[in-house]
Amino acid sequence: MRFASFMHQGRSAWGAITDSGVIDLSARYGGQWPSLRAVIEQAALPQIGDLAAGQAADFAVADIVYDIPITAPEKILCVGVNFPDRNAEYKDGQESPPYMSLFPRFARSFTGHGQPLIRPPESPQLDYEGEMTIIIGKGGRRIADADALGHIAALTLCNEGTIRDWVRHAKFNVTQGKNWDRSGAIGPWIVPFTDESQLADIALQTRVNGQVRQSDRTSRMIFGFRQIIAYISTFTTLVPGDVIVCGTPTGAGARFDPPIWLKPGDVVEVEAEGIGTLTNTVADEVP
Amino acid sequence: MRFASFMHQGRSAWGAITDSGVIDLSARYGGQWPSLRAVIEQAALPQIGDLAAGQAADFAVADIVYDIPITAPEKILCVGVNFPDRNAEYKDGQESPPYMSLFPRFARSFTGHGQPLIRPPESPQLDYEGEMTIIIGKGGRRIADADALGHIAALTLCNEGTIRDWVRHAKFNVTQGKNWDRSGAIGPWIVPFTDESQLADIALQTRVNGQVRQSDRTSRMIFGFRQIIAYISTFTTLVPGDVIVCGTPTGAGARFDPPIWLKPGDVVEVEAEGIGTLTNTVADEVP
Repeated sequence: MRFASFMHQGRSAWGAITDSGVIDLSARYGGQWPSLRAVIEQAALPQIGDLAAGQAADFAVADIVYDIPITAPEKILCVGVNFPDRNAEYKDGQESPPYMSLFPRFARSFTGHGQPLIRPPESPQLDYEGEMTIIIGKGGRRIADADALGHIAALTLCNEGTIRDWVRHAKFNVTQGKNWDRSGAIGPWIVPFTDESQLADIALQTRVNGQVRQSDRTSRMIFGFRQIIAYISTFTTLVPGDVIVCGTPTGAGARFDPPIWLKPGDVVEVEAEGIGTLTNTVADEVP
Repeated sequence: MRFASFMHQGRSAWGAITDSGVIDLSARYGGQWPSLRAVIEQAALPQIGDLAAGQAADFAVADIVYDIPITAPEKILCVGVNFPDRNAEYKDGQESPPYMSLFPRFARSFTGHGQPLIRPPESPQLDYEGEMTIIIGKGGRRIADADALGHIAALTLCNEGTIRDWVRHAKFNVTQGKNWDRSGAIGPWIVPFTDESQLADIALQTRVNGQVRQSDRTSRMIFGFRQIIAYISTFTTLVPGDVIVCGTPTGAGARFDPPIWLKPGDVVEVEAEGIGTLTNTVADEVP
Protein backbone atom coordinates (compact mmCIF):
# COMPACT_ATOMS: atom_id res chain seq x y z
CA MET A 1 0.00 0.00 0.00
CA ARG A 2 1.17 3.48 -0.90
CA PHE A 3 -0.42 6.62 0.51
CA ALA A 4 0.18 10.14 -0.75
CA SER A 5 -0.83 13.73 -0.13
CA PHE A 6 -1.67 15.63 -3.29
CA MET A 7 -3.61 18.43 -4.94
CA HIS A 8 -6.50 17.50 -7.21
CA GLN A 9 -8.31 20.23 -9.09
CA GLY A 10 -6.97 22.82 -6.67
CA ARG A 11 -8.02 20.91 -3.55
CA SER A 12 -5.69 19.39 -0.93
CA ALA A 13 -6.33 15.67 -0.59
CA TRP A 14 -4.80 12.36 0.43
CA GLY A 15 -5.36 8.84 -0.71
CA ALA A 16 -3.97 5.58 -1.98
CA ILE A 17 -1.84 5.31 -5.11
CA THR A 18 -2.55 2.08 -6.98
CA ASP A 19 -1.53 0.68 -10.34
CA SER A 20 -4.90 1.69 -11.76
CA GLY A 21 -5.00 5.21 -10.32
CA VAL A 22 -5.69 7.26 -7.22
CA ILE A 23 -8.25 6.33 -4.57
CA ASP A 24 -9.25 9.62 -2.96
CA LEU A 25 -9.56 8.54 0.67
CA SER A 26 -9.85 12.11 1.92
CA ALA A 27 -13.10 12.49 -0.03
CA ARG A 28 -14.48 9.49 1.85
CA TYR A 29 -12.86 9.76 5.28
CA GLY A 30 -11.51 13.32 5.48
CA GLY A 31 -13.89 14.16 8.31
CA GLN A 32 -12.31 11.53 10.50
CA TRP A 33 -8.76 11.99 9.22
CA PRO A 34 -8.20 15.41 7.66
CA SER A 35 -4.62 14.53 6.69
CA LEU A 36 -2.14 11.67 6.52
CA ARG A 37 -0.64 13.08 9.68
CA ALA A 38 -4.00 12.62 11.38
CA VAL A 39 -4.15 9.04 10.10
CA ILE A 40 -0.74 8.41 11.63
CA GLU A 41 -1.65 10.15 14.89
CA GLN A 42 -4.51 7.71 15.23
CA ALA A 43 -2.35 4.72 14.22
CA ALA A 44 -4.85 4.14 11.42
CA LEU A 45 -2.58 3.21 8.50
CA PRO A 46 -3.65 -0.47 8.65
CA GLN A 47 -7.29 0.64 8.85
CA ILE A 48 -7.13 2.93 5.81
CA GLY A 49 -5.32 0.17 3.97
CA ASP A 50 -8.30 -2.06 4.63
CA LEU A 51 -10.72 0.69 3.63
CA ALA A 52 -8.87 1.30 0.36
CA ALA A 53 -8.67 -2.39 -0.56
CA GLY A 54 -10.92 -3.26 -3.43
CA GLN A 55 -12.10 0.30 -4.11
CA ALA A 56 -11.94 1.59 -7.66
CA ALA A 57 -9.63 4.45 -8.53
CA ASP A 58 -11.25 7.88 -8.62
CA PHE A 59 -8.86 9.45 -11.09
CA ALA A 60 -5.59 8.92 -12.88
CA VAL A 61 -2.24 9.53 -11.24
CA ALA A 62 -1.60 12.04 -14.04
CA ASP A 63 -4.43 14.19 -12.66
CA ILE A 64 -2.80 14.87 -9.30
CA VAL A 65 0.04 17.10 -8.19
CA TYR A 66 2.00 15.36 -5.45
CA ASP A 67 2.62 17.23 -2.22
CA ILE A 68 5.11 16.09 0.37
CA PRO A 69 3.48 13.15 2.19
CA ILE A 70 3.22 14.78 5.62
CA THR A 71 2.39 18.33 4.60
CA ALA A 72 2.75 19.94 8.02
CA PRO A 73 4.92 17.83 10.30
CA GLU A 74 5.86 19.22 13.70
CA LYS A 75 9.49 18.72 12.80
CA ILE A 76 11.80 17.45 10.09
CA LEU A 77 15.25 16.37 11.25
CA CYS A 78 18.08 15.32 8.93
CA VAL A 79 21.12 13.24 9.80
CA GLY A 80 24.35 14.51 8.22
CA VAL A 81 27.34 12.49 7.03
CA ASN A 82 25.94 9.04 7.81
CA PHE A 83 27.75 6.80 5.29
CA PRO A 84 31.40 5.77 5.72
CA ASP A 85 32.84 7.37 2.59
CA ARG A 86 31.11 10.64 3.30
CA ASN A 87 32.72 10.82 6.70
CA ALA A 88 36.12 10.33 5.08
CA GLU A 89 35.39 13.39 2.97
CA TYR A 90 35.28 15.45 6.15
CA LYS A 91 38.17 13.65 7.81
CA ASP A 92 39.75 15.55 10.66
CA GLY A 93 41.59 12.86 12.56
CA GLN A 94 38.40 11.18 13.75
CA GLU A 95 37.82 7.81 12.17
CA SER A 96 34.15 7.93 12.90
CA PRO A 97 32.23 10.63 14.75
CA PRO A 98 31.05 9.89 18.30
CA TYR A 99 27.60 11.41 17.72
CA MET A 100 25.50 12.05 14.67
CA SER A 101 25.23 15.48 13.10
CA LEU A 102 21.63 16.72 12.97
CA PHE A 103 19.93 19.67 11.36
CA PRO A 104 16.29 20.66 10.95
CA ARG A 105 14.67 21.58 7.66
CA PHE A 106 11.44 23.46 7.24
CA ALA A 107 8.65 21.76 5.25
CA ARG A 108 8.71 24.59 2.72
CA SER A 109 12.26 23.61 1.73
CA PHE A 110 10.73 20.52 0.06
CA THR A 111 8.46 19.95 -2.89
CA GLY A 112 6.51 16.85 -3.94
CA HIS A 113 7.27 14.04 -6.37
CA GLY A 114 7.24 15.22 -9.97
CA GLN A 115 7.60 18.90 -9.09
CA PRO A 116 10.71 20.89 -10.01
CA LEU A 117 13.54 21.39 -7.58
CA ILE A 118 14.15 25.13 -7.63
CA ARG A 119 17.58 26.59 -8.40
CA PRO A 120 17.62 30.13 -7.00
CA PRO A 121 19.35 33.03 -8.74
CA GLU A 122 21.70 33.47 -5.76
CA SER A 123 23.72 30.30 -6.42
CA PRO A 124 24.41 27.76 -9.15
CA GLN A 125 25.36 25.13 -6.54
CA LEU A 126 22.12 23.14 -6.28
CA ASP A 127 23.09 19.60 -5.28
CA TYR A 128 21.19 16.35 -4.69
CA GLU A 129 21.33 13.94 -1.74
CA GLY A 130 19.18 10.80 -1.87
CA GLU A 131 18.11 9.53 1.55
CA MET A 132 15.93 6.96 3.28
CA THR A 133 13.31 8.70 5.35
CA ILE A 134 11.22 7.51 8.26
CA ILE A 135 7.89 8.84 9.50
CA ILE A 136 7.32 8.55 13.23
CA GLY A 137 4.14 6.81 14.30
CA LYS A 138 4.02 6.41 18.04
CA GLY A 139 5.64 9.42 19.71
CA GLY A 140 7.93 9.27 22.67
CA ARG A 141 10.88 10.55 24.63
CA ARG A 142 14.04 8.61 25.46
CA ILE A 143 13.01 5.72 23.26
CA ALA A 144 15.29 2.72 23.82
CA ASP A 145 17.22 1.26 20.87
CA ALA A 146 15.33 -2.00 21.35
CA ASP A 147 11.96 -0.27 21.03
CA ALA A 148 12.86 2.21 18.30
CA LEU A 149 11.52 0.44 15.24
CA GLY A 150 8.11 0.19 16.89
CA HIS A 151 7.90 3.97 16.66
CA ILE A 152 8.14 4.06 12.85
CA ALA A 153 4.82 4.34 11.03
CA ALA A 154 6.02 4.51 7.45
CA LEU A 155 8.91 4.96 5.05
CA THR A 156 9.49 7.41 2.24
CA LEU A 157 12.37 8.96 0.30
CA CYS A 158 14.02 12.35 0.33
CA ASN A 159 16.13 14.25 -2.12
CA GLU A 160 17.76 16.41 0.51
CA GLY A 161 18.60 19.11 -2.04
CA THR A 162 21.23 21.55 -0.89
CA ILE A 163 22.63 24.91 -1.96
CA ARG A 164 26.19 23.84 -1.37
CA ASP A 165 28.03 27.16 -0.99
CA TRP A 166 25.45 28.44 1.49
CA VAL A 167 26.04 25.37 3.70
CA ARG A 168 29.46 26.86 4.41
CA HIS A 169 28.34 30.44 5.06
CA ALA A 170 28.55 30.04 8.80
CA LYS A 171 30.93 28.26 11.12
CA PHE A 172 28.64 26.12 13.21
CA ASN A 173 25.52 25.41 11.20
CA VAL A 174 24.36 24.33 7.76
CA THR A 175 20.88 25.85 8.19
CA GLN A 176 20.93 28.32 5.33
CA GLY A 177 22.24 25.90 2.73
CA LYS A 178 19.63 23.32 3.67
CA ASN A 179 16.51 25.44 3.76
CA TRP A 180 16.02 27.10 0.39
CA ASP A 181 12.37 27.00 -0.56
CA ARG A 182 11.60 23.90 -2.68
CA SER A 183 15.27 22.98 -3.02
CA GLY A 184 14.57 19.38 -2.01
CA ALA A 185 11.78 16.82 -2.31
CA ILE A 186 10.06 14.17 -0.19
CA GLY A 187 7.97 11.30 -1.56
CA PRO A 188 6.60 10.05 -3.76
CA TRP A 189 4.40 8.44 -1.10
CA ILE A 190 4.65 6.69 2.22
CA VAL A 191 4.77 2.93 2.58
CA PRO A 192 3.56 1.53 5.92
CA PHE A 193 6.37 0.06 7.97
CA THR A 194 5.65 -3.37 9.37
CA ASP A 195 8.90 -5.32 9.30
CA GLU A 196 12.57 -4.58 9.94
CA SER A 197 13.47 -6.11 6.56
CA GLN A 198 11.99 -2.99 4.94
CA LEU A 199 14.87 -0.98 6.40
CA ALA A 200 17.75 -3.20 7.40
CA ASP A 201 19.66 -3.69 4.16
CA ILE A 202 17.96 -1.69 1.44
CA ALA A 203 19.61 -0.59 -1.80
CA LEU A 204 19.44 3.19 -2.14
CA GLN A 205 20.36 4.85 -5.40
CA THR A 206 20.38 8.37 -6.84
CA ARG A 207 20.53 8.96 -10.58
CA VAL A 208 20.89 12.19 -12.54
CA ASN A 209 19.66 11.99 -16.11
CA GLY A 210 19.86 8.20 -15.79
CA GLN A 211 23.46 8.16 -14.59
CA VAL A 212 24.04 6.51 -11.20
CA ARG A 213 25.63 9.03 -8.84
CA GLN A 214 24.93 7.54 -5.41
CA SER A 215 24.48 3.86 -4.66
CA ASP A 216 24.77 2.17 -1.30
CA ARG A 217 22.89 0.03 1.19
CA THR A 218 21.27 1.09 4.45
CA SER A 219 23.18 -1.65 6.29
CA ARG A 220 26.27 0.54 5.85
CA MET A 221 24.88 3.57 7.65
CA ILE A 222 27.18 4.77 10.46
CA PHE A 223 24.23 5.43 12.74
CA GLY A 224 21.40 2.97 12.18
CA PHE A 225 17.70 3.67 12.36
CA ARG A 226 17.42 2.48 15.96
CA GLN A 227 20.27 4.71 17.08
CA ILE A 228 18.86 7.71 15.25
CA ILE A 229 15.47 7.42 16.96
CA ALA A 230 17.02 6.74 20.36
CA TYR A 231 19.45 9.67 20.15
CA ILE A 232 17.00 12.27 18.84
CA SER A 233 14.34 11.30 21.36
CA THR A 234 16.85 11.82 24.16
CA PHE A 235 16.54 15.59 23.80
CA THR A 236 13.21 16.17 22.03
CA THR A 237 9.85 14.45 22.22
CA LEU A 238 9.07 12.76 18.93
CA VAL A 239 5.43 13.05 17.86
CA PRO A 240 3.39 11.25 15.19
CA GLY A 241 4.19 12.55 11.72
CA ASP A 242 7.70 13.71 12.55
CA VAL A 243 10.03 13.14 9.62
CA ILE A 244 13.62 11.91 9.97
CA VAL A 245 15.86 11.99 6.90
CA CYS A 246 18.57 9.45 7.55
CA GLY A 247 21.67 10.50 5.60
CA THR A 248 23.03 10.19 2.08
CA PRO A 249 25.65 7.91 0.47
CA THR A 250 28.78 9.32 -1.10
CA GLY A 251 28.50 10.75 -4.61
CA ALA A 252 26.79 14.12 -4.34
CA GLY A 253 27.72 16.59 -7.07
CA ALA A 254 30.11 18.34 -4.68
CA ARG A 255 32.29 15.22 -4.64
CA PHE A 256 33.28 15.50 -8.30
CA ASP A 257 36.33 17.45 -9.43
CA PRO A 258 35.21 19.86 -10.67
CA PRO A 259 31.85 19.66 -8.90
CA ILE A 260 28.82 18.89 -11.04
CA TRP A 261 25.85 21.01 -9.96
CA LEU A 262 22.29 20.40 -11.01
CA LYS A 263 21.06 22.56 -13.87
CA PRO A 264 17.63 23.29 -15.33
CA GLY A 265 16.17 20.30 -17.16
CA ASP A 266 18.10 17.70 -15.18
CA VAL A 267 16.06 14.75 -13.93
CA VAL A 268 16.96 13.45 -10.48
CA GLU A 269 15.71 10.07 -9.27
CA VAL A 270 16.07 8.64 -5.78
CA GLU A 271 15.13 4.97 -5.63
CA ALA A 272 14.93 2.45 -2.82
CA GLU A 273 13.81 -1.17 -2.84
CA GLY A 274 10.32 -1.55 -1.50
CA ILE A 275 9.49 2.14 -1.57
CA GLY A 276 9.73 3.34 -5.15
CA THR A 277 11.34 6.21 -7.04
CA LEU A 278 11.17 9.89 -6.16
CA THR A 279 11.62 11.84 -9.39
CA ASN A 280 12.10 15.57 -9.80
CA THR A 281 13.24 17.82 -12.56
CA VAL A 282 15.30 20.95 -11.96
CA ALA A 283 14.13 24.43 -12.88
CA ASP A 284 15.36 27.94 -12.41
CA GLU A 285 13.29 30.01 -10.06
CA VAL A 286 10.75 32.16 -11.85
CA PRO A 287 11.09 35.63 -10.38
CA MET B 1 0.01 47.09 25.13
CA ARG B 2 1.18 43.60 26.03
CA PHE B 3 -0.41 40.46 24.62
CA ALA B 4 0.20 36.94 25.88
CA SER B 5 -0.83 33.35 25.26
CA PHE B 6 -1.66 31.45 28.40
CA MET B 7 -3.59 28.66 30.08
CA HIS B 8 -6.49 29.60 32.36
CA GLN B 9 -8.32 26.87 34.23
CA GLY B 10 -6.97 24.28 31.83
CA ARG B 11 -8.03 26.18 28.70
CA SER B 12 -5.68 27.70 26.06
CA ALA B 13 -6.33 31.41 25.72
CA TRP B 14 -4.78 34.72 24.70
CA GLY B 15 -5.34 38.25 25.83
CA ALA B 16 -3.95 41.52 27.11
CA ILE B 17 -1.82 41.77 30.24
CA THR B 18 -2.54 44.99 32.13
CA ASP B 19 -1.49 46.40 35.48
CA SER B 20 -4.87 45.39 36.90
CA GLY B 21 -4.98 41.89 35.44
CA VAL B 22 -5.66 39.83 32.34
CA ILE B 23 -8.23 40.78 29.70
CA ASP B 24 -9.24 37.47 28.10
CA LEU B 25 -9.56 38.56 24.47
CA SER B 26 -9.86 34.97 23.21
CA ALA B 27 -13.10 34.62 25.19
CA ARG B 28 -14.48 37.61 23.29
CA TYR B 29 -12.85 37.33 19.86
CA GLY B 30 -11.53 33.77 19.66
CA GLY B 31 -13.90 32.96 16.82
CA GLN B 32 -12.30 35.59 14.64
CA TRP B 33 -8.77 35.09 15.91
CA PRO B 34 -8.20 31.67 17.49
CA SER B 35 -4.61 32.55 18.43
CA LEU B 36 -2.14 35.41 18.61
CA ARG B 37 -0.63 34.00 15.45
CA ALA B 38 -4.01 34.46 13.74
CA VAL B 39 -4.15 38.05 15.02
CA ILE B 40 -0.74 38.69 13.49
CA GLU B 41 -1.66 36.94 10.22
CA GLN B 42 -4.52 39.40 9.89
CA ALA B 43 -2.35 42.37 10.92
CA ALA B 44 -4.86 42.96 13.71
CA LEU B 45 -2.56 43.86 16.64
CA PRO B 46 -3.65 47.55 16.49
CA GLN B 47 -7.28 46.46 16.30
CA ILE B 48 -7.13 44.16 19.32
CA GLY B 49 -5.29 46.92 21.15
CA ASP B 50 -8.29 49.18 20.52
CA LEU B 51 -10.70 46.41 21.51
CA ALA B 52 -8.85 45.79 24.77
CA ALA B 53 -8.65 49.46 25.72
CA GLY B 54 -10.91 50.35 28.59
CA GLN B 55 -12.08 46.80 29.27
CA ALA B 56 -11.92 45.50 32.81
CA ALA B 57 -9.59 42.63 33.66
CA ASP B 58 -11.22 39.22 33.76
CA PHE B 59 -8.83 37.64 36.20
CA ALA B 60 -5.58 38.18 38.02
CA VAL B 61 -2.22 37.55 36.37
CA ALA B 62 -1.58 35.05 39.17
CA ASP B 63 -4.41 32.91 37.79
CA ILE B 64 -2.79 32.23 34.42
CA VAL B 65 0.06 29.99 33.30
CA TYR B 66 2.02 31.71 30.57
CA ASP B 67 2.61 29.86 27.33
CA ILE B 68 5.13 30.99 24.74
CA PRO B 69 3.49 33.93 22.94
CA ILE B 70 3.22 32.29 19.50
CA THR B 71 2.38 28.76 20.51
CA ALA B 72 2.75 27.13 17.07
CA PRO B 73 4.92 29.25 14.79
CA GLU B 74 5.87 27.86 11.40
CA LYS B 75 9.49 28.39 12.32
CA ILE B 76 11.80 29.64 15.02
CA LEU B 77 15.26 30.70 13.86
CA CYS B 78 18.08 31.76 16.16
CA VAL B 79 21.13 33.85 15.30
CA GLY B 80 24.36 32.60 16.87
CA VAL B 81 27.36 34.59 18.06
CA ASN B 82 25.96 38.07 17.30
CA PHE B 83 27.75 40.30 19.80
CA PRO B 84 31.40 41.36 19.40
CA ASP B 85 32.87 39.77 22.53
CA ARG B 86 31.14 36.48 21.82
CA ASN B 87 32.75 36.32 18.43
CA ALA B 88 36.15 36.83 20.06
CA GLU B 89 35.41 33.76 22.14
CA TYR B 90 35.29 31.71 18.95
CA LYS B 91 38.20 33.52 17.29
CA ASP B 92 39.76 31.60 14.46
CA GLY B 93 41.57 34.31 12.55
CA GLN B 94 38.41 35.95 11.33
CA GLU B 95 37.82 39.34 12.91
CA SER B 96 34.14 39.18 12.18
CA PRO B 97 32.22 36.48 10.33
CA PRO B 98 31.03 37.20 6.79
CA TYR B 99 27.59 35.68 7.36
CA MET B 100 25.50 35.04 10.43
CA SER B 101 25.23 31.60 11.99
CA LEU B 102 21.63 30.37 12.12
CA PHE B 103 19.92 27.43 13.73
CA PRO B 104 16.29 26.42 14.15
CA ARG B 105 14.68 25.49 17.43
CA PHE B 106 11.44 23.61 17.87
CA ALA B 107 8.66 25.30 19.84
CA ARG B 108 8.72 22.49 22.37
CA SER B 109 12.26 23.48 23.36
CA PHE B 110 10.76 26.55 25.04
CA THR B 111 8.49 27.15 27.99
CA GLY B 112 6.54 30.23 29.03
CA HIS B 113 7.29 33.04 31.47
CA GLY B 114 7.24 31.87 35.07
CA GLN B 115 7.61 28.20 34.20
CA PRO B 116 10.71 26.20 35.12
CA LEU B 117 13.56 25.69 32.67
CA ILE B 118 14.17 21.96 32.73
CA ARG B 119 17.59 20.50 33.50
CA PRO B 120 17.64 16.96 32.11
CA PRO B 121 19.36 14.06 33.84
CA GLU B 122 21.71 13.63 30.85
CA SER B 123 23.72 16.79 31.49
CA PRO B 124 24.44 19.31 34.25
CA GLN B 125 25.39 21.96 31.65
CA LEU B 126 22.15 23.95 31.38
CA ASP B 127 23.13 27.49 30.39
CA TYR B 128 21.21 30.75 29.77
CA GLU B 129 21.35 33.15 26.84
CA GLY B 130 19.19 36.30 26.98
CA GLU B 131 18.11 37.55 23.56
CA MET B 132 15.95 40.13 21.81
CA THR B 133 13.32 38.38 19.76
CA ILE B 134 11.22 39.58 16.85
CA ILE B 135 7.89 38.26 15.62
CA ILE B 136 7.32 38.54 11.88
CA GLY B 137 4.13 40.29 10.81
CA LYS B 138 4.02 40.69 7.07
CA GLY B 139 5.62 37.68 5.39
CA GLY B 140 7.91 37.83 2.42
CA ARG B 141 10.86 36.54 0.47
CA ARG B 142 14.02 38.48 -0.35
CA ILE B 143 13.00 41.37 1.84
CA ALA B 144 15.29 44.37 1.30
CA ASP B 145 17.21 45.83 4.23
CA ALA B 146 15.33 49.08 3.77
CA ASP B 147 11.95 47.37 4.08
CA ALA B 148 12.85 44.86 6.79
CA LEU B 149 11.53 46.63 9.87
CA GLY B 150 8.11 46.90 8.22
CA HIS B 151 7.90 43.12 8.45
CA ILE B 152 8.14 43.04 12.26
CA ALA B 153 4.82 42.75 14.08
CA ALA B 154 6.02 42.58 17.65
CA LEU B 155 8.92 42.12 20.06
CA THR B 156 9.49 39.69 22.86
CA LEU B 157 12.38 38.13 24.80
CA CYS B 158 14.04 34.75 24.77
CA ASN B 159 16.14 32.84 27.21
CA GLU B 160 17.77 30.68 24.59
CA GLY B 161 18.63 27.99 27.14
CA THR B 162 21.26 25.54 26.00
CA ILE B 163 22.66 22.18 27.06
CA ARG B 164 26.22 23.24 26.46
CA ASP B 165 28.06 19.94 26.07
CA TRP B 166 25.47 18.65 23.59
CA VAL B 167 26.06 21.71 21.40
CA ARG B 168 29.47 20.21 20.69
CA HIS B 169 28.35 16.64 20.03
CA ALA B 170 28.55 17.06 16.27
CA LYS B 171 30.94 18.83 13.95
CA PHE B 172 28.65 20.98 11.89
CA ASN B 173 25.52 21.69 13.89
CA VAL B 174 24.37 22.76 17.32
CA THR B 175 20.90 21.24 16.91
CA GLN B 176 20.96 18.76 19.76
CA GLY B 177 22.28 21.20 22.36
CA LYS B 178 19.65 23.75 21.44
CA ASN B 179 16.52 21.66 21.35
CA TRP B 180 16.03 19.99 24.69
CA ASP B 181 12.36 20.09 25.67
CA ARG B 182 11.60 23.20 27.77
CA SER B 183 15.28 24.11 28.10
CA GLY B 184 14.58 27.72 27.11
CA ALA B 185 11.80 30.27 27.42
CA ILE B 186 10.07 32.92 25.30
CA GLY B 187 7.97 35.80 26.62
CA PRO B 188 6.62 37.03 28.87
CA TRP B 189 4.41 38.62 26.21
CA ILE B 190 4.66 40.39 22.89
CA VAL B 191 4.78 44.17 22.54
CA PRO B 192 3.56 45.55 19.19
CA PHE B 193 6.38 47.03 17.14
CA THR B 194 5.65 50.46 15.74
CA ASP B 195 8.90 52.39 15.80
CA GLU B 196 12.57 51.66 15.18
CA SER B 197 13.47 53.19 18.55
CA GLN B 198 11.99 50.08 20.18
CA LEU B 199 14.89 48.07 18.72
CA ALA B 200 17.75 50.30 17.70
CA ASP B 201 19.67 50.77 20.94
CA ILE B 202 17.96 48.78 23.67
CA ALA B 203 19.62 47.70 26.91
CA LEU B 204 19.45 43.91 27.24
CA GLN B 205 20.37 42.24 30.51
CA THR B 206 20.38 38.72 31.93
CA ARG B 207 20.54 38.12 35.67
CA VAL B 208 20.90 34.90 37.64
CA ASN B 209 19.67 35.10 41.23
CA GLY B 210 19.86 38.89 40.89
CA GLN B 211 23.48 38.94 39.70
CA VAL B 212 24.06 40.58 36.32
CA ARG B 213 25.64 38.06 33.93
CA GLN B 214 24.95 39.56 30.51
CA SER B 215 24.50 43.25 29.76
CA ASP B 216 24.79 44.91 26.41
CA ARG B 217 22.90 47.08 23.92
CA THR B 218 21.28 46.01 20.66
CA SER B 219 23.18 48.73 18.80
CA ARG B 220 26.29 46.56 19.25
CA MET B 221 24.89 43.53 17.42
CA ILE B 222 27.20 42.33 14.63
CA PHE B 223 24.23 41.65 12.34
CA GLY B 224 21.42 44.14 12.90
CA PHE B 225 17.70 43.41 12.74
CA ARG B 226 17.42 44.62 9.15
CA GLN B 227 20.27 42.38 8.01
CA ILE B 228 18.86 39.38 9.85
CA ILE B 229 15.47 39.66 8.14
CA ALA B 230 17.00 40.35 4.73
CA TYR B 231 19.44 37.44 4.94
CA ILE B 232 17.01 34.82 6.25
CA SER B 233 14.34 35.78 3.73
CA THR B 234 16.84 35.27 0.94
CA PHE B 235 16.52 31.51 1.30
CA THR B 236 13.20 30.94 3.08
CA THR B 237 9.84 32.65 2.88
CA LEU B 238 9.06 34.33 6.17
CA VAL B 239 5.43 34.04 7.24
CA PRO B 240 3.39 35.83 9.92
CA GLY B 241 4.20 34.55 13.39
CA ASP B 242 7.71 33.38 12.56
CA VAL B 243 10.03 33.95 15.49
CA ILE B 244 13.61 35.18 15.14
CA VAL B 245 15.86 35.08 18.21
CA CYS B 246 18.58 37.63 17.55
CA GLY B 247 21.66 36.61 19.51
CA THR B 248 23.03 36.92 23.02
CA PRO B 249 25.65 39.18 24.63
CA THR B 250 28.78 37.78 26.22
CA GLY B 251 28.51 36.35 29.72
CA ALA B 252 26.79 32.98 29.44
CA GLY B 253 27.73 30.51 32.16
CA ALA B 254 30.12 28.75 29.77
CA ARG B 255 32.31 31.89 29.76
CA PHE B 256 33.29 31.60 33.41
CA ASP B 257 36.35 29.67 34.54
CA PRO B 258 35.22 27.24 35.76
CA PRO B 259 31.88 27.44 34.00
CA ILE B 260 28.83 28.20 36.14
CA TRP B 261 25.88 26.07 35.05
CA LEU B 262 22.31 26.70 36.10
CA LYS B 263 21.06 24.55 38.97
CA PRO B 264 17.64 23.80 40.42
CA GLY B 265 16.19 26.78 42.26
CA ASP B 266 18.12 29.39 40.28
CA VAL B 267 16.08 32.35 39.01
CA VAL B 268 16.99 33.65 35.57
CA GLU B 269 15.73 37.03 34.37
CA VAL B 270 16.08 38.44 30.87
CA GLU B 271 15.15 42.12 30.73
CA ALA B 272 14.95 44.64 27.92
CA GLU B 273 13.83 48.25 27.96
CA GLY B 274 10.33 48.63 26.60
CA ILE B 275 9.49 44.94 26.69
CA GLY B 276 9.75 43.75 30.28
CA THR B 277 11.35 40.87 32.14
CA LEU B 278 11.19 37.20 31.26
CA THR B 279 11.63 35.25 34.51
CA ASN B 280 12.13 31.52 34.91
CA THR B 281 13.26 29.26 37.66
CA VAL B 282 15.31 26.13 37.06
CA ALA B 283 14.14 22.65 37.97
CA ASP B 284 15.38 19.14 37.50
CA GLU B 285 13.29 17.09 35.16
CA VAL B 286 10.75 14.94 36.95
CA PRO B 287 11.08 11.44 35.52
